[in-house]
Amino acid sequence: MRFSINQSAFMNGVGTVQRAISTKNVLPPILSGIYIEASGDHLVLRATDLEIGIECVIAANVHSEGAVVLPARHFVEIVRKLPEIEILFEEADNGQVRIGYGKSEILLNAYDADEFPTLQDFDEQSTLTLNTHDVVSAIRNVSIAASSDYSRPIFTGVLFEVSGNRIRLVATDTHRLAYTEIELEEESQQDPLSLIIPNRSLTELTKILNPDEEQVRVVINENKILFETAQMKITSRLIEGKFVNYRQVIPEGFSTRVRMLRKPFHDSLDRASLMSRDDLSKKKLNTVKLAISESVMEISSRSSQIGALEEEIPVHLEGDPLDIGFNAKYILDVLRVMDSEEIVMELTSPLSPGIIRPAQGDDKTLFLVLPIRLG
Amino acid sequence: MRFSINQSAFMNGVGTVQRAISTKNVLPPILSGIYIEASGDHLVLRATDLEIGIECVIAANVHSEGAVVLPARHFVEIVRKLPEIEILFEEADNGQVRIGYGKSEILLNAYDADEFPTLQDFDEQSTLTLNTHDVVSAIRNVSIAASSDYSRPIFTGVLFEVSGNRIRLVATDTHRLAYTEIELEEESQQDPLSLIIPNRSLTELTKILNPDEEQVRVVINENKILFETAQMKITSRLIEGKFVNYRQVIPEGFSTRVRMLRKPFHDSLDRASLMSRDDLSKKKLNTVKLAISESVMEISSRSSQIGALEEEIPVHLEGDPLDIGFNAKYILDVLRVMDSEEIVMELTSPLSPGIIRPAQGDDKTLFLVLPIRLG
Repeated sequence: MRFSINQSAFMNGVGTVQRAISTKNVLPPILSGIYIEASGDHLVLRATDLEIGIECVIAANVHSEGAVVLPARHFVEIVRKLPEIEILFEEADNGQVRIGYGKSEILLNAYDADEFPTLQDFDEQSTLTLNTHDVVSAIRNVSIAASSDYSRPIFTGVLFEVSGNRIRLVATDTHRLAYTEIELEEESQQDPLSLIIPNRSLTELTKILNPDEEQVRVVINENKILFETAQMKITSRLIEGKFVNYRQVIPEGFSTRVRMLRKPFHDSLDRASLMSRDDLSKKKLNTVKLAISESVMEISSRSSQIGALEEEIPVHLEGDPLDIGFNAKYILDVLRVMDSEEIVMELTSPLSPGIIRPAQGDDKTLFLVLPIRLG
Repeated sequence: MRFSINQSAFMNGVGTVQRAISTKNVLPPILSGIYIEASGDHLVLRATDLEIGIECVIAANVHSEGAVVLPARHFVEIVRKLPEIEILFEEADNGQVRIGYGKSEILLNAYDADEFPTLQDFDEQSTLTLNTHDVVSAIRNVSIAASSDYSRPIFTGVLFEVSGNRIRLVATDTHRLAYTEIELEEESQQDPLSLIIPNRSLTELTKILNPDEEQVRVVINENKILFETAQMKITSRLIEGKFVNYRQVIPEGFSTRVRMLRKPFHDSLDRASLMSRDDLSKKKLNTVKLAISESVMEISSRSSQIGALEEEIPVHLEGDPLDIGFNAKYILDVLRVMDSEEIVMELTSPLSPGIIRPAQGDDKTLFLVLPIRLG
């Protein structure tokens, strides 16, 4: 194997696939490596931790074909620090790889490429074509509600429900829930599908999808999913099990509907959450109280240790005044991923879930947050 | 006490004095607080961990005078998140402070200001006036060689030797040493002085000295030092003991003198150091070998685990060719704080200390690094 490539193009590719590598010690050790295959006029770079796999294709001057695997941690650091010139890369003796740049060279110990797993094979039963921007935006919205507690795997995933001309995306950690939809450009020809994709895989997907590529192709098999563009592939195992019945959780009506500017609400809550932390108490509930009246919402929080805060912001109320408590963090997470200037909260009682939606435009997205009983 | 002040001016001051507060739990607890005193047309803000004290004066509209102490960690976070408007600050009941902004308010539990220590008093026996830029630049140079191992306090300090019209600054952790000089604008009238200032205090000083203020006044007492400008004061205790005899350590002559560009040397060493780390071996010496010949210096490193590197850079040699080993980190630290385009290394033998100096301009600064015996 022998090829030459510009340092920054190489770094780009290596940095992308590196995301699939587990930060923990992995077995077999070859999974801590990056697979590099030179053929035709390009390189295929690949890495996987068996849950998620990333492959990317970059142009290179290939002088002779072949494949090697290099330990990712050192290799990525080295490529990052190489000068921004043409890099020559070739197999050397003793299972080593020679990286030449200018008058300098690095010899790196390599793994045997034959032992590196391929990304899973997909038979192309169920395929969809999605708009890249829609996918990124939908994942960004629902991701915040997924759990990071791996002892309950279902909640670390995002539900993808494909039926007709839309995909419904749902995530919940049981304290809050996020829901949105992606419209398909053409109606899906197959039976309705329901799958749970690890949130980690989707988050990596949003980081490596190139917004210049308008479309991403999705192939779904029984226990795995593939997202593919011209330059990259990302595969993920699916989470087994049955997702919670989210339809049952989302309230149908409301008695209080309050509209407000997103930014001032965010900033007030951000300050209020400083005061609702209490280092002495074990319960870090981060509770803030919202007192909603005709034209004003009062936001308050209190810590015996630190002090108290009381703010008010102008709101537009339809329905009944209401006092309700929330975990400030859950509402802040929602307000940070929303991009509408105004938002709406729909509430029923101090103990019923609150719904937050964009006030304009997007009527497909909603966030549900459970309240906290006020003391 | 009652005053109003713009949020960003307040944040500036609070952020400056906060640097004196220990990140560890401190006793008495009041030392985790920031002292705020309103009088005349300004505020005095102050914090100290008893080793270092910082005081700063900022303009404010003082309606009534007084002083309070607020817990720094929460208070700084709160001030940072306040809107960028005029903030009203006043004493409330029950030992609380009221911070008003727009229609909102925060009540914070305060400490009793009477219990807060003043910065130490200084009798003005020994005073010096230094150029701010010179001070910052000199500290930046020598700081890198100070130790952070507090079990040997002397080496965590920087020697200030005042005599005639100059101050000599020296720091060493016993593996390397940095030396520079500050020229005084007028000759010091007093007897020669020798003091050891904690490197931490000097590093904080460089961070808060405002480059717009041309001069900094220094007052030295037996066991403490004060740096003072119109806007701020920083005091530090001195380290007791006798500094090493640095004159004995710096070699007088050399048999090899090699001149080179700083940046390419830095970049090569930076890559070489990736290869000189060996996770399997206990000894992380980070050894790189420099092989100096007529017009070229070869830089090489090797790790049984990772691989090997060999680079070469053009140099200008006077004297004898030489092979010598160094800890790459120590040389990199030096090259990062130097700003001359070219540097010079003076060497005598593979086991004698190496000297690094700027090739042009500054002939007051030198760095000494002990070599590592090559295997």
